[in-house]
Amino acid sequence: MIAEIITIGDEILIGQIVDTNSAWLAQQLNDIGVDVRQITSISDSRRHIIAALDTAKKKADLIIITGGLGPTADDITKPTLAEYFGTKLVRNQELFEHVKFLIERHGFEMTENNAKQADIPANCTPLSNENGTAAGMWFEQDGKIFISMPGVPFEMKNITEKQVLPKLKTQFSLPSIVHRTIQTFGVAESILANKINSWESALPSSIKLAYLPSPERVRLRLSYRGTNQNDTEKTLDKLTQGLKVLLGDTIFGMGNIFLENAIADLLKGSGKTVATAESCTGGNVAKLITSVPGSSAYFEGGVVAYSNRIKEEILKVNRQTLITHGAVSEATVQEMATGIRQLYQSDFGVAVSGIAGPSGGSPEKPVGTVWVAVSSENETVTRLLSLGNKRDITVRRASAKALDMLRRLIIKTNA
Amino acid sequence: MIAEIITIGDEILIGQIVDTNSAWLAQQLNDIGVDVRQITSISDSRRHIIAALDTAKKKADLIIITGGLGPTADDITKPTLAEYFGTKLVRNQELFEHVKFLIERHGFEMTENNAKQADIPANCTPLSNENGTAAGMWFEQDGKIFISMPGVPFEMKNITEKQVLPKLKTQFSLPSIVHRTIQTFGVAESILANKINSWESALPSSIKLAYLPSPERVRLRLSYRGTNQNDTEKTLDKLTQGLKVLLGDTIFGMGNIFLENAIADLLKGSGKTVATAESCTGGNVAKLITSVPGSSAYFEGGVVAYSNRIKEEILKVNRQTLITHGAVSEATVQEMATGIRQLYQSDFGVAVSGIAGPSGGSPEKPVGTVWVAVSSENETVTRLLSLGNKRDITVRRASAKALDMLRRLIIKTNA
Repeated sequence: MIAEIITIGDEILIGQIVDTNSAWLAQQLNDIGVDVRQITSISDSRRHIIAALDTAKKKADLIIITGGLGPTADDITKPTLAEYFGTKLVRNQELFEHVKFLIERHGFEMTENNAKQADIPANCTPLSNENGTAAGMWFEQDGKIFISMPGVPFEMKNITEKQVLPKLKTQFSLPSIVHRTIQTFGVAESILANKINSWESALPSSIKLAYLPSPERVRLRLSYRGTNQNDTEKTLDKLTQGLKVLLGDTIFGMGNIFLENAIADLLKGSGKTVATAESCTGGNVAKLITSVPGSSAYFEGGVVAYSNRIKEEILKVNRQTLITHGAVSEATVQEMATGIRQLYQSDFGVAVSGIAGPSGGSPEKPVGTVWVAVSSENETVTRLLSLGNKRDITVRRASAKALDMLRRLIIKTNA
Repeated sequence: MIAEIITIGDEILIGQIVDTNSAWLAQQLNDIGVDVRQITSISDSRRHIIAALDTAKKKADLIIITGGLGPTADDITKPTLAEYFGTKLVRNQELFEHVKFLIERHGFEMTENNAKQADIPANCTPLSNENGTAAGMWFEQDGKIFISMPGVPFEMKNITEKQVLPKLKTQFSLPSIVHRTIQTFGVAESILANKINSWESALPSSIKLAYLPSPERVRLRLSYRGTNQNDTEKTLDKLTQGLKVLLGDTIFGMGNIFLENAIADLLKGSGKTVATAESCTGGNVAKLITSVPGSSAYFEGGVVAYSNRIKEEILKVNRQTLITHGAVSEATVQEMATGIRQLYQSDFGVAVSGIAGPSGGSPEKPVGTVWVAVSSENETVTRLLSLGNKRDITVRRASAKALDMLRRLIIKTNA
């Protein structure tokens, strides 16, 4: 099955937003064996939408359209689709009730503009949108599928996951694609490639390996495409096993997980708890830990100690330590990690202090210098990082490093 | 001048990378008055490249192609372009010297594969690439401009800034485009539309309005296109002024800023400070505040009080309040906001407590129930929110609401 993705919105064409919907959709479609041949971004223009649909229809079996479904005058996807399919917009009672419910839940009064969100082309099957007032729409014409969804990413993703993908899998016989994702942290892409070089060369031709690096993790993804799914699972298991031998605890998990999920798995049900003390990461480590549902079982909380006064008064870092070594130092971060553990009576403590920049650097401690410590009853482990001069990247890398050090300390403590 | 951007690469179509080149290019082109009508992403396939060029040529005066210029076999843009223009690849001596210089500077020996990077279609003007071995190429045919550049973002950006944009500006007389972005928070898109309905209807035809909603803000963007830039600035100023009268303090700023930037502007140089006490947002409010460079001047830090014990022991919330009203209550969040202000000796305190879900809800306090409080020396303001059952969205919305309440309290205190 060949697909084309069409994203609609002037904001994409003037570069005001980066179109992340297409990449996400392409990934999802690829995962179920649908081949994306083209991604097209066009403006909120009747003429361009119709031209894009015509062009796409010639090459693709499945055309997925996102954007242009808002309640305002510049959103013209819906009337254009009605025109394209030679039909009219009709009010859908079920959608109307849903829009009314959402609007009134937010304490607003229903306007005619809101009500119009329940008008859809007569020939489509609506795809309900739990998170918003713009419904998705499924059209079939001349053996081709057209799906229109709102451009708001979390609305689009929910509709895709809950309705579009299941419907496609039921309605069509798609080739089997099996992915196996191995999550690693702490070893750069090129070094990983060297380490697994001979393993990689021996991969069967039906299986492809991709490296997907980000500040939080380097994903290795094995992809099989073919028909024999049973054998595939076994082959992939065996290959993954080989990788585990080569990479050891650089691998923190399988599937689409992050370090905070690996930590959740290690701590859930153990009765052990963790607390965080952050300076330059400004709460990001706590935010990552609490992004996992159920984290309240093992996360007590944290302190963001941005000023030295708070490091001293709340975390009980010695004034002399701050004066002698500075806030960004091994000694300070050690005391922060043990301090938060004592203050919050947690089993593990995590501490980060560094210079995120752009200012605050010095020749001895340039921007990007970060100290991380993790502490348990038995020991405190520290690491010095040098993360460059991009503030947001420094925060992301330092946070991930802190979580990885916590993960390793928990494993060591459990051993 | 109408442009189309074509990005080439299998990794885009399987969603392995997000195409950020297009958005950047679109912004640059838009800024010099070139209209991007379409962005197309296709695979490294001769057939698809030729088809895309043919389609683009029918609609656009300028076709910009990125990607597929690497030295490996899957990079086929260059021979395909030579074929498309009915010409041959010829070795360019100047490019050869540059490739040789780069390769040898890295301590490698020049291979035939490297040397091929200096082969370009005979009919093009090369655009030298300071940062890499793949040159850009400028073609002219039938009054249309075709530009091919490498897909590596910093190489492409350098070629665009130093050569493509200046050449376009010299060679063509382009109209002026002016954008004005107005940032709002707290009023839904549809209500905003109602409020400014008559203002919007009276917009001159040369000016367009777009609504760009996200959990953190609703952006309103005015775009002018024409020739008279002087008058435009005045017209846009006047229109923005009209909008300010209609929307008042719903507007938190102009340009590409977030609530945390507006808070930075209000607090910087005032000597006043803020501290945060977070439960369900888990550190996200602190993280947003500290994402602004220089936030250490007004941000003392915060406490993430995930457990009730920490709310009581660290933030000094009364045990009786927690027992009687629960952790997610107006009384608790009030005490958290005043507690953090006292603990951190800050001028302003922000507190959030809620049920982010998926579990923890009850009939009286369903998942998505969030209380927010902001506190100053003179008063504490609270708000009850009902944010639905998406954990990440609830955190984002609650954080933005907390920042907006802080912003309003600072303004009121300063008044």
